[in-house]
Amino acid sequence: VNNQEVLLARRPVGRLAEADLEIVATRLPALRSGEVLVENLWQSVDPSTRLRMNATTPDGYLPPFALGEALVGMAAGRVVESRAEEFREGDAVTHMWGYRRFSVVRPGRAELGGIGELAKVDASDRPLSRYLGVLGSTGLAAWAGLTVVADLKPSDIVWVSAAAGAVGSIAAQLAKARGNVVIGSARSEPKIAYLRDVLCLDGAITYRNGRLADELKRAAPEGIDVYFDNVGGDHLEAAITPLRPHGRVAMCGTVASYSSAGTAPGPANMFQIVSKRLVLRGFRTGDFIDALPEMRAGLGQHLDDGAIECAERSFEGIGSVVHAMNSMLDGHHVGKTLCRLA
Amino acid sequence: VNNQEVLLARRPVGRLAEADLEIVATRLPALRSGEVLVENLWQSVDPSTRLRMNATTPDGYLPPFALGEALVGMAAGRVVESRAEEFREGDAVTHMWGYRRFSVVRPGRAELGGIGELAKVDASDRPLSRYLGVLGSTGLAAWAGLTVVADLKPSDIVWVSAAAGAVGSIAAQLAKARGNVVIGSARSEPKIAYLRDVLCLDGAITYRNGRLADELKRAAPEGIDVYFDNVGGDHLEAAITPLRPHGRVAMCGTVASYSSAGTAPGPANMFQIVSKRLVLRGFRTGDFIDALPEMRAGLGQHLDDGAIECAERSFEGIGSVVHAMNSMLDGHHVGKTLCRLA
Repeated sequence: VNNQEVLLARRPVGRLAEADLEIVATRLPALRSGEVLVENLWQSVDPSTRLRMNATTPDGYLPPFALGEALVGMAAGRVVESRAEEFREGDAVTHMWGYRRFSVVRPGRAELGGIGELAKVDASDRPLSRYLGVLGSTGLAAWAGLTVVADLKPSDIVWVSAAAGAVGSIAAQLAKARGNVVIGSARSEPKIAYLRDVLCLDGAITYRNGRLADELKRAAPEGIDVYFDNVGGDHLEAAITPLRPHGRVAMCGTVASYSSAGTAPGPANMFQIVSKRLVLRGFRTGDFIDALPEMRAGLGQHLDDGAIECAERSFEGIGSVVHAMNSMLDGHHVGKTLCRLA
Repeated sequence: VNNQEVLLARRPVGRLAEADLEIVATRLPALRSGEVLVENLWQSVDPSTRLRMNATTPDGYLPPFALGEALVGMAAGRVVESRAEEFREGDAVTHMWGYRRFSVVRPGRAELGGIGELAKVDASDRPLSRYLGVLGSTGLAAWAGLTVVADLKPSDIVWVSAAAGAVGSIAAQLAKARGNVVIGSARSEPKIAYLRDVLCLDGAITYRNGRLADELKRAAPEGIDVYFDNVGGDHLEAAITPLRPHGRVAMCGTVASYSSAGTAPGPANMFQIVSKRLVLRGFRTGDFIDALPEMRAGLGQHLDDGAIECAERSFEGIGSVVHAMNSMLDGHHVGKTLCRLA
């Protein structure tokens, strides 16, 4: 017995309960030819993992996890032993076979559109955890969503929802770094303060008081051109009204719906999509793996020059997964959520 | 007194009443330098004209008509007198200053994105009315919506709603002519028969029985790739579920909402836009004026080779406008709605 894995013990209803997941001790098999043994040091905690714990997932999404099986999700670690040519002991890597202390990975499988494949990263001058966040799939979601999906232009006024979250905080700062006017929204006062005082956004609005549209109008009286949607539902409706002609919506996810199977009614102002020639485009990060080197160069530069501040909240140990995920989904902290595994 | 104009006498509620419009006799002013006098022979009857009779129009749309002022809308006719260099007596033309027996038009004004500008058309071997329908803005909506907005690909399975209508019937036939599998929907049995027996679509479904999603599933069991939306509301929701990954929606208008100021709730399955990476794109025909020559060549060829049949329903006289518009919005006939003015 030399490994630990996180299993889905029962399907959660709403918030995760400790009994929904089970940490089991297992024995690592002997490494076969072509395989790599990775000690996972960081576990990425993502809303999509919670979504996959439900009995069904939306059409076109990743399938639900099976009961009694180990979860998967992006992890970063070090190669302990390699029987694959391209990897050597000590290599810093990311891969999607996380939720284990050690993972046996076979390289070359284009999981999650390639982003989940075992890949070396250069952690010589950056913390390894960055490659799960700002320089990993989180950063790629922000980068691709803003530059490709929303086709950001210099004069665009941008609204980012869940702007204190992992993806949102990078998207908001990237747009700021490019010189755009950026409004961010979040659901608590501490987060609003973070958007205003730390990220220095042009507007920071909350939606706890149910007057999102009014606050948006105050923050961006001339309207917006791009809405980076991390929330869906009422937020999307609130975005459609101030969107100016030829406005664009990059739909990254709807955090609110990850914990529930329920579906909320869509925006009542859909006709404005026609009248203002809007484009709503849903996207998944894995579709933009080709942009990974460009994203790492671009966001890496912004990290170096201080234009982007990288917030990470890490929880200690594989046993903290339930707590970490609830804290993220409850919106209790800013930035990227991680578990430190060793 | 030598002209007749159609004024908005009062704002209609729901269906048009005769008293909502007034036909007044007016005197034509003497033609000034740079102006052209057109005798209008055909009046295009469009849902957008009904929408503009409301006290407000959706943000980004054309403004409401003023009470007591003449309507405008696309018309086709002959030049009677010209004091502009580019036009001569006898020229066949289209322009947006219709709802008059005669119009005094100043060329060179890029109205409605250019499609409303006074323009010569070649009516030597085609009926002039075609330039309001299949070879006019109606055809351009179908052409641009399908080829540009929806980016139609050879293997796409296409659903066109209101497929017996002016735009829908052209869009459905164009996709058929390109070899796509095409499902059309309409709201009455005679129209279903038209889609099935005249347009020879691969599937013809109705939505009178409230089971649109089921009928769509039967007609396209493998799903669809493109939805050409002329209806909005429940139709859009019914489209999102069978849309396959990377599916596209060209949002041309929402006929149901033209007569009412009310807004219906949007689709409850919006998360699938993310999970399946769908694109919803609203468009207005005037944005695609550059494609007009290509559209006329393409659809003209299809008219000649019989791949597209062109349904027109014409009403007699300027006094038939109310009846024509109600008949169109009630869905009482197929194809393009016109009033013959002379």
